Amino acid sequence: MYSQHHHWSPSEKKTARRAFDAALALALGKIIAEFKSKAAAVSTPDAMWDIEDYLRQQRKYIDETFDYRYSQLLVVFARLIFDGLLQPEQLAGLAEDKLQIVRGYLDFANRD
Amino acid sequence: MYSQHHHWSPSEKKTARRAFDAALALALGKIIAEFKSKAAAVSTPDAMWDIEDYLRQQRKYIDETFDYRYSQLLVVFARLIFDGLLQPEQLAGLAEDKLQIVRGYLDFANRD
Repeated sequence: MYSQHHHWSPSEKKTARRAFDAALALALGKIIAEFKSKAAAVSTPDAMWDIEDYLRQQRKYIDETFDYRYSQLLVVFARLIFDGLLQPEQLAGLAEDKLQIVRGYLDFANRD
Repeated sequence: MYSQHHHWSPSEKKTARRAFDAALALALGKIIAEFKSKAAAVSTPDAMWDIEDYLRQQRKYIDETFDYRYSQLLVVFARLIFDGLLQPEQLAGLAEDKLQIVRGYLDFANRD
C-alpha cells in the first residue's frame, strides 16, 4: 500500500497511460488470437462450453488486472511485467522511486 | 401439469428417447455451427465478450429445454416442435392421447 501517496507529474502520467494502454492492447490481442484458435478447434459441445469458462476467466483477468487508479498503478505495472505484457523499458520516464517499488514487487513475486 | 400421470409403454419410451436425442443433437449441432461462425467473425474484444454471453444463453436454453422427466416430456416435445428442433412425425408411435396433448400445447403457443 506504500505506493498510494506518490505524486505523478504530467509527463509521468503520460508515460504510465501509454504503458498501460499498450499492455492492455497486447493482452486483448493475445486473448482474441487464442480464443479464435480454440474456437476453430471446437468439435464437441463440451469443448464449446469450455470456451465460455475460458472467456469468463479472461474477462475476469482483464477486469482485475487493468486498474488505472494511481494508488494501484505500480503494483499493476509489476504484475504486467511479471505476466509478460509489459517490458520494464516502457516505464522509462517514471521517477526512480516508483521504478524501485515496481522492482520490489517483482523481486517479491519472483521469489515464489 | 395434466401430462404428469401418463403411462409410458416400453415402445413409447423408445420413441420418446429417440426423438429427444435427435432434437438434442440437432440443437447442439446448430449452436456449434453458429458459434464457430460468430467466433471466426470476431475482431474486437467486445465482440468476443458477446460470445461469452451467447454461450451462456445457449447453455441455459439447452439445460432448461431438454428435460427428460416423463412428467415434462410432452411439453418438452411441444417446445421442440415449436422451436423447429423436432418434426411431429418423429413422435409417431406415441399414444394418441399424448399426441393430442402435444398438439394442445402447440395450438396454445401458436395463438400468441
